[in-house]
Amino acid sequence: MTVTTSPDPGAYLDHAATTPMSSAALEAFVAAAGRTGNASSLHSAGRAARRVVEESREAAAAALGARPSEVIFTAGGTESDNLAVKGIFWGRRSQDSRRRRVLVSAVEHHAVLDPAFWLAGHAGAEITLLPVDAEGRLDLDALRAELAAHADEIALVSVMWANNEVGAVQPVRDVVRLAHQHGVPVHTDAIQAVGQVEVDFAASGVDAMTVTGHKIGGPVGVGALLARRDLALEAVSHGGGQERGVRSGTLDVPAIRAFSVALTDAVGRREEHAARLAALRDTLVDGVRRVAPRAVLRGPDPASSTPDGVPDRLPANAHFTFPGAEGDSLLYLLDSAGVQASTGSACQAGVPQPSHVLLAMGVEEADARGALRFSLGATSTAQDVEALLDALPGVVERARAAGLVSARQGGAA
Amino acid sequence: MTVTTSPDPGAYLDHAATTPMSSAALEAFVAAAGRTGNASSLHSAGRAARRVVEESREAAAAALGARPSEVIFTAGGTESDNLAVKGIFWGRRSQDSRRRRVLVSAVEHHAVLDPAFWLAGHAGAEITLLPVDAEGRLDLDALRAELAAHADEIALVSVMWANNEVGAVQPVRDVVRLAHQHGVPVHTDAIQAVGQVEVDFAASGVDAMTVTGHKIGGPVGVGALLARRDLALEAVSHGGGQERGVRSGTLDVPAIRAFSVALTDAVGRREEHAARLAALRDTLVDGVRRVAPRAVLRGPDPASSTPDGVPDRLPANAHFTFPGAEGDSLLYLLDSAGVQASTGSACQAGVPQPSHVLLAMGVEEADARGALRFSLGATSTAQDVEALLDALPGVVERARAAGLVSARQGGAA
Repeated sequence: MTVTTSPDPGAYLDHAATTPMSSAALEAFVAAAGRTGNASSLHSAGRAARRVVEESREAAAAALGARPSEVIFTAGGTESDNLAVKGIFWGRRSQDSRRRRVLVSAVEHHAVLDPAFWLAGHAGAEITLLPVDAEGRLDLDALRAELAAHADEIALVSVMWANNEVGAVQPVRDVVRLAHQHGVPVHTDAIQAVGQVEVDFAASGVDAMTVTGHKIGGPVGVGALLARRDLALEAVSHGGGQERGVRSGTLDVPAIRAFSVALTDAVGRREEHAARLAALRDTLVDGVRRVAPRAVLRGPDPASSTPDGVPDRLPANAHFTFPGAEGDSLLYLLDSAGVQASTGSACQAGVPQPSHVLLAMGVEEADARGALRFSLGATSTAQDVEALLDALPGVVERARAAGLVSARQGGAA
Repeated sequence: MTVTTSPDPGAYLDHAATTPMSSAALEAFVAAAGRTGNASSLHSAGRAARRVVEESREAAAAALGARPSEVIFTAGGTESDNLAVKGIFWGRRSQDSRRRRVLVSAVEHHAVLDPAFWLAGHAGAEITLLPVDAEGRLDLDALRAELAAHADEIALVSVMWANNEVGAVQPVRDVVRLAHQHGVPVHTDAIQAVGQVEVDFAASGVDAMTVTGHKIGGPVGVGALLARRDLALEAVSHGGGQERGVRSGTLDVPAIRAFSVALTDAVGRREEHAARLAALRDTLVDGVRRVAPRAVLRGPDPASSTPDGVPDRLPANAHFTFPGAEGDSLLYLLDSAGVQASTGSACQAGVPQPSHVLLAMGVEEADARGALRFSLGATSTAQDVEALLDALPGVVERARAAGLVSARQGGAA
């Protein structure tokens, strides 16, 4: 059977939040969902379901440079990050009770930061936020100094492969080299990196890595933690003992199958995809600078790369601050004009907060409030970028006018 | 579009492990998966996704006698049980550090037992296993005595609505009445009960309740914890702050929608469905007793019910032990004959263990090893039962012969 995914109305420039599910992934889901069987059951329906899981595990491992036995399927990125941070903390601490320190970059996603701070409140962990430079890239000297001072007390280091807001690709191999000199394991959240830059679990040397489905054309609600077999990793969710006892819960066969299809596809077409999106992103960045000259690009220079050719910035990411405008105003005004973007910052309980990522980069709070992220994906077109550039000048003008009004009403104009 | 779910080959008598996904649920999934949008995004695609979630929340709440604000969507039953046991423990203990005791019935699913024992190892919890009678029903006097002795130290009581192995429907209202006399909150895992007996969250008085999708024709990988707003409940998974801050992670819009469709359908047709399955189950039980006279039905009498008409046993459940036969042998031999059943017991890491449920009921270990569970569902037919009854005499004979051989080889014959 053929299933279709309908395009969204307007220009969807928020692929870093979620991507359209690919037709291939949805077809794989539907095919697997049409067959009944719990992969933990011993009868033939159960064994058939188990085969689908193990084939998917092999495909996911092959796409990411890992062994099948290193793939632990989860319900998504947040669960994988929770499992990594808490599971490695508990695993390492039970080996040596002195290992209470958790080193995380200051620009991690909340799914890494919040478990770390929860451990501080509930399990005696001590959290160190590793600083970043003005472009959002990790300060390796600060990591080096922390490792030298406290290596015996460090449970783990967690540094994302690439930042979800400003697209900064982190020096993960350097992090691994430094941490491993002291016998400290490294976790990386590679959710935004997969499909955009080369991600090879074994070659990177990381001990654990988070990936998820719905940022690469797969379904929501499924992801994986890749974890080396010799890593001390305790379970976080307890029950039936699935996934080598580390992640209990009935295996979600259709979602796992669809995830592996999307992952294989995203990795297979990565170079062509990245080149196309980088060009489109450059058009977007140049255009925004032209039509909104006061906008400030945040994050690494799109044109710069490491000596071995890895771009410093994700090809699909653009991020600006617009002085004098509120990101939320910009977002809503653009949305009215049919262009969907993100402030890129956490907005919990309806209260807009300036992004912790921008603040960690040294951006002033007033400037950080005017942030807007544009993220491209498989369905993005030149027309999407044109729609943004057509709408942006008027939107920025109106958002600034609104900002002036609210500033005056606040008595601060 | 129309999607189809193909029936399994042979007789599938393992609906308690997982059910075929209904066509309506799969169609709902596909329709929602065809629209892109993260329900936490503020633009129109995000708000449309949020509407699907909130409509699904209203439908799920209506089906279960709860308020929409009491529904916390999760990735399934294991996660919901973990959230309930750990989240209530932490929530109650942070209100009063003396509350370290967790009371759970001895026949709970591992998704309740294992989090409780993990709390004992990691957070100073003290676990009391509440005993059951020979039919698997909770000993209310034991609960009463524990509450009287230790009420101020009890964080929570967790007693499942109905047992997944032997189908015993528990006296949840009595549990609530006793626990609430002492101000102790009650969690119940209602996974097996929904769609078979009446489950009304508000009327039951429970403070938290676990439900899941894939046991009622919905997708795997989605479920909910229902929780009263005044219940002290801490988050277990941390991150973006979704689901009132208690359950972080991108909302799985297609799965949530499909779950609500399946739930609404399962509850709506419950009476007719339960009556049909109870009759089919009675045919199965009578037939097994006829063709395998030494088989012993475990769990409550299918014909008995409470004074207000609630059956003592789930209508879709039958469970037997076959003296002198190994459950695994029976399972594999039946499978070869095209009949898919379950031993009903945990089989972790390939090592068959006698069921903790049967042992708690006082069944001897040797007898417990010969257990087989038959569970019916929406697609079950009289032909499925006939296939079982045709195959069973030969299967039992061969399994007993195999048991005698292995017993002789072990020197114990």
